[in-house]
This record gives sequence, C-alpha cells and structure tokens, in this order.
Amino acid sequence: MDKIFPYDSVELSEDGKELIVLDQSVLPNAEVFLRLTSAEEIFFAITLLKVRGAPAIGIAAALGLAMCMNRMQTGNLQEFEDEFLRIKRHLYISRPTAVNLMWALDRMERCYYETKAKVSEKEDAIDVIRVALTKEARAIKEEDIQMCLGISENGFSLLKPGVGILTHCNAGHLAVSRYGTALGPIYFAQQRGYAPRVYCDETRPMLQGSRLTAYELMKAGVDTTLICDDMASIVMAQKKVDAVFVGCDRIAANGDVANKVGTSALAILARYYGIPFYVLGPTSTLDLNCSSGKDIVIEERPAYEVTDTYFSSQMAPKGVKVYNPAFDITPADLITGIVTEKGIFDASEMAKSFSLK
Amino acid sequence: MDKIFPYDSVELSEDGKELIVLDQSVLPNAEVFLRLTSAEEIFFAITLLKVRGAPAIGIAAALGLAMCMNRMQTGNLQEFEDEFLRIKRHLYISRPTAVNLMWALDRMERCYYETKAKVSEKEDAIDVIRVALTKEARAIKEEDIQMCLGISENGFSLLKPGVGILTHCNAGHLAVSRYGTALGPIYFAQQRGYAPRVYCDETRPMLQGSRLTAYELMKAGVDTTLICDDMASIVMAQKKVDAVFVGCDRIAANGDVANKVGTSALAILARYYGIPFYVLGPTSTLDLNCSSGKDIVIEERPAYEVTDTYFSSQMAPKGVKVYNPAFDITPADLITGIVTEKGIFDASEMAKSFSLK
Repeated sequence: MDKIFPYDSVELSEDGKELIVLDQSVLPNAEVFLRLTSAEEIFFAITLLKVRGAPAIGIAAALGLAMCMNRMQTGNLQEFEDEFLRIKRHLYISRPTAVNLMWALDRMERCYYETKAKVSEKEDAIDVIRVALTKEARAIKEEDIQMCLGISENGFSLLKPGVGILTHCNAGHLAVSRYGTALGPIYFAQQRGYAPRVYCDETRPMLQGSRLTAYELMKAGVDTTLICDDMASIVMAQKKVDAVFVGCDRIAANGDVANKVGTSALAILARYYGIPFYVLGPTSTLDLNCSSGKDIVIEERPAYEVTDTYFSSQMAPKGVKVYNPAFDITPADLITGIVTEKGIFDASEMAKSFSLK
Repeated sequence: MDKIFPYDSVELSEDGKELIVLDQSVLPNAEVFLRLTSAEEIFFAITLLKVRGAPAIGIAAALGLAMCMNRMQTGNLQEFEDEFLRIKRHLYISRPTAVNLMWALDRMERCYYETKAKVSEKEDAIDVIRVALTKEARAIKEEDIQMCLGISENGFSLLKPGVGILTHCNAGHLAVSRYGTALGPIYFAQQRGYAPRVYCDETRPMLQGSRLTAYELMKAGVDTTLICDDMASIVMAQKKVDAVFVGCDRIAANGDVANKVGTSALAILARYYGIPFYVLGPTSTLDLNCSSGKDIVIEERPAYEVTDTYFSSQMAPKGVKVYNPAFDITPADLITGIVTEKGIFDASEMAKSFSLK
C-alpha cells in the first residue's frame, strides 16, 4: 500500500538519537511533533497521554529505550547496563495497565543480555549492544506494521464500495505503528477507491473519537461524520451504517471481548438492527488465561474525566458520584467475526484454532 | 406530597409583577434566580435556554405575558390590547419547535378576548383582563402540577424499595411545573423511604443529564450516579438498573415515541438485558395526526453543539461533518408501558383508548 500518512505517530530518527512523537494530547487543535531525547521526556509523554494506544506505547518505549542508550556517553559497560536497567524500570511503570509496554521492554531486556553474552572479545560491547537494541526496537515496530497490514487486508475483504462503517474510540494510525486495526481496512478501502463513509462517535469521556479518529480519518481524506455516543442507534435505524468495526484490548478464551466502554452497546444495537459487528485486533490479544469476560476485572477511572476534563468548567454538581469504567465486555455471541492478521475467526471458535497449534 | 424543592423553576411573584426563573444555563456551577420584568428578558431567557423543558417554557411564557400586562401603565384599552398582542407574537417565536409554548400563548389570547367580551360597562376592562390573564396563567401551571402528580403517582406504583433507575436527559422538576415526568416517581419514592438509586447519563451534546438531572436529584437527596452515555450497557450488564424511565416529546398513534436522541438505544439495551423500559409523559403528547414514528421529522441541530459547546476549546477537527439530531424514535414494541396522568398504557394500545373517548 502507498503511504497514506506522511508520518507515523512514533518514529526513531535515522541516527537513532531522537524519538519523534506526534503529541496526541493537543490534537486536533494543534499538530505538534515532540523530539524526545531523554527517559524523563518519554516517561511523561506516555503518562500524559501524548502517546497512547497500547501498540504505540510499546513501540515508543522500545524505540525510546534504544534512543537513550544511543545517546549515553560512557565507555564503562557496567555503567551502561545500570543505566539501561534504570530506564527500563522507569518506563515500565509509566502506564500500569499497558501490557504491550511491559512486553516490549522485557523483549528489549532479553535482547540486551543475549547480545552481551555473544559479544566477542575483539568487539566494543557497548557499540554492539547499541546496534542490537536499535535493531530490536525497530523490529518491534516493523512487526506491528506487518500485523496491521494483515488485519487491514483481511478487514478490507469484508467491504464493498460506498460502505458505511461505524467505529468507536481510536483503533487507528495514531494508536499503533501504522494504519491501525479497526481503521486499517478503511484506509485500504479509501486507497482503492471504495469511498468508505465513516461514522465515528465521540467516545466519552476522553473523546478519542472526536479528537483522534475524526482527525486521522480526515487527514486521509475519508468521508467522516462525527456523532455523539447516544446517536449510534439513530444512524443505524436510518441505514447509514453497513457494519461496526471496533478494536480490542483483550479476547477471552470463549471469545468475549474487552474493549473501550461503549463497545458492548454498539454490539447490542448492531444485533437489533441486523448489522454485522466486527472486532479487529492481533491474535496476540487472545488471552487463554481468561476463560470468559467474567475473569477480566473492569478498571475504574477517576471521576474528573467525566465531570471536568476538556470542559470549560465543571459540568456536573460538585461531589456527584461518578461511575467511569475504562472498558466493557462484549459477549462472543454478539460478534460477527474477529478480524486478525491470521484471518477472520468466529469469536467462540478462535481459541480452539490457537490451542491446537 | 410534601414540598421537596424549596422553589419551582418558574414562579410568578405574589404581586404578579415579576417572573422568577432559575437560570438553567449556568447550572450546576451557580444557582442564579432571575427576576424578569419585561418581554425582552423573557424572550432571551427562553432563547438562551435559561428556561428549558417544553412544559416549563409554556408556563414561563404564560406567566410572563400576564406579568408584562400587570406592569403596563395605561388607561387605554386599545394600547393595552396592542401591547398584549405584540408581546404574545414576540414570545411565540422564542423557540420555534416548542409546541407547549404556542399552546400556552394561544390559550392566553383566548382568555383575553373571552374576558374582554364579558366585561360589563361598570367595570374597568384593563383591570378585569389583568386579573383574568394572571388567573389563567396560574391555572396553566396548576394543571401541569396536577398532571405531574398523576404521572408521579402512577410511575411510583411500579417501584420497589432500593430500586435502581436509569434515566436520560432531563424530564424532571426543572423541565416542568414541579417534580417532573420521568423523575416524578423517583421523588415520590425518595419521600416514601424507598431509597431509589438513579443512574443518570450525561446526555450529549447538551449535557442535560450531568448539568440538570444530577443537580436536581442531588438537591432532593436522591442517591445519584453520573455515567457517560456509552456506559449504559455496562451498568445494565452489572444488574445495577431495574428499570429505565424516560420522558417523551411526542407519541405517535401506533405508540412509537419521539424523545431526546439516545432514548431508542436505551430501549434496545433494556430489551437485550430484560429490563423494563417505561416512557413517562402526559396524555397530551399523544399526537393522533402521526400514524407512526416515520411521520415525525427529525430536527437537526447545529454542529457546534457537538464540537464546541461546553468545551474549553474545539474538540474535533475543524470542518468535520457532524450529525446532530435532536431526538430519535423508539418503536412501540420496545416500550414496556407509557405512564401518564390517566394510567399506564400499552404503547400500541394507547391511541385506541383515546380515540374511543
């Protein structure tokens, strides 16, 4: 596929000494590229949601760790290793619930020790490790790109010219290495002349839909209509939507899917209106340790996200109780299919395909 | 029922020369009572949503018109009548789609001419008309109070101690004369020791749920939890909700209900989760001229309500297309019952009961 976006949301500079990040916290009002050169800056970029989306966070942490080691000036391997471990531990806690973050950093640590063990006496260990870490971090991103391309191609096979898609939250270019999961097939369709029409909902309380999804779809020239979350039913009733495409945070063994709160409502509405409902994500989100959605603990987020964040003043009575769950569980039987890089699966059959391997 | 609220949202001062209005546009951050003394002030109070809710608007216009005539200093009946008609026409267009507004003002005009026709030569026509207009406006409000009390009592009959209710938008004390339609039974339950628990959703884009419903429920001491619109499914899945109570703008002859956008989604979710879904409103909202919901034209509102209003800066890309319908249609077969002042009706049977009369 031709390059749709002139940049990725997370990039390592060619010399490996800067991490270039599109600041998602100020979108869509400003497009600000941050050039990060320290572990502290990366930590805060993740904590303050300047980088968000589980895959993008993992990639930023891995590339960022490599960047920090490329910049470090020392000839002492022990100093170099101490600094590597300090930064790794520091970034590890920048977003406590981000599995990709920990996975990527652990992989970088494995790379560190495997490379160190193989360095010959003739070589400069620090130089060799620097090269290996940079290569490993770039590989993490490249694998994510390939995974997204696979999901996009498989998802695209479901689309027809002029298709209307409803999406929730942001499972797009900004959240991953490139193109996205739920939005990837839409970009393929756009490039191939299908002229898809996308309804994106705001996704309260953090407005990932209006701030990020609408932004990146419009950047790519996609016909985009913003609605509020409570308007999904009417656009379905008016037959403006042919399918719902959403991302996923985790897939239980029975096919139940955890994703941004509001996802299960769209699945129920889609079933009522007879509209197919697809979940798009990598096979790596299948968690065989969870037998069903009931095993997934719902994370609750702070009240101020609902009452204050993004508003010009508090928009609810002081002291009101707020329930602000981060995600909800969509039962497997409401899911038309799970679109992965390895194919499209029936939700309840997916685990079987993988436990056989 | 004892008085729950120390004030009504629209009141005429005892001397009939001030219209006292709680400014809903600055709630919940400030409780400001406006004392209006001119037609212009009333016009802007309605236009700028300082008074909102169809019944409350009608009451404000009627009481306001009487107030203006009570203040007018003239001994000339023709001058008095010209001013009456000028103000009536002016208020008539303050909210173009508010049926109650026009209905209340037309009723005031009928009262004017009927009174004028009956004035004896011994009486001061202006004084007699002033008294009659004030009495008529107060009657309009009193009838609304009685109607709300009837709905509240009938809705209360559906509740049990500890009941959990989900509501949408604001069909409460602020929107009517007193207590409300959808919220009326909750206030009865609260007064009678049932300790109801209410989940109120934000109701994007205008936030009537977080700004107004949460405010008035908390004022009455009701256990209130605010959620975003996309969280209705998860609170139902967690069995926190025993019934959904919503208001209504119009009821078609076949029982389809037009109400604030998002209402139909709650009806579909309630059906999926096996939770009863009740619509609460006066029999006067039954519109036999509409055979079904398809006859009701969906009003579209401006994009800035979704992208800008209440936010500290624009929260969507400049120029994004927005679909912002004011209400949606809930099919009759999803409605467990329509709770009116005259009883609880099966949605699809309701029209039959009334066309027989």
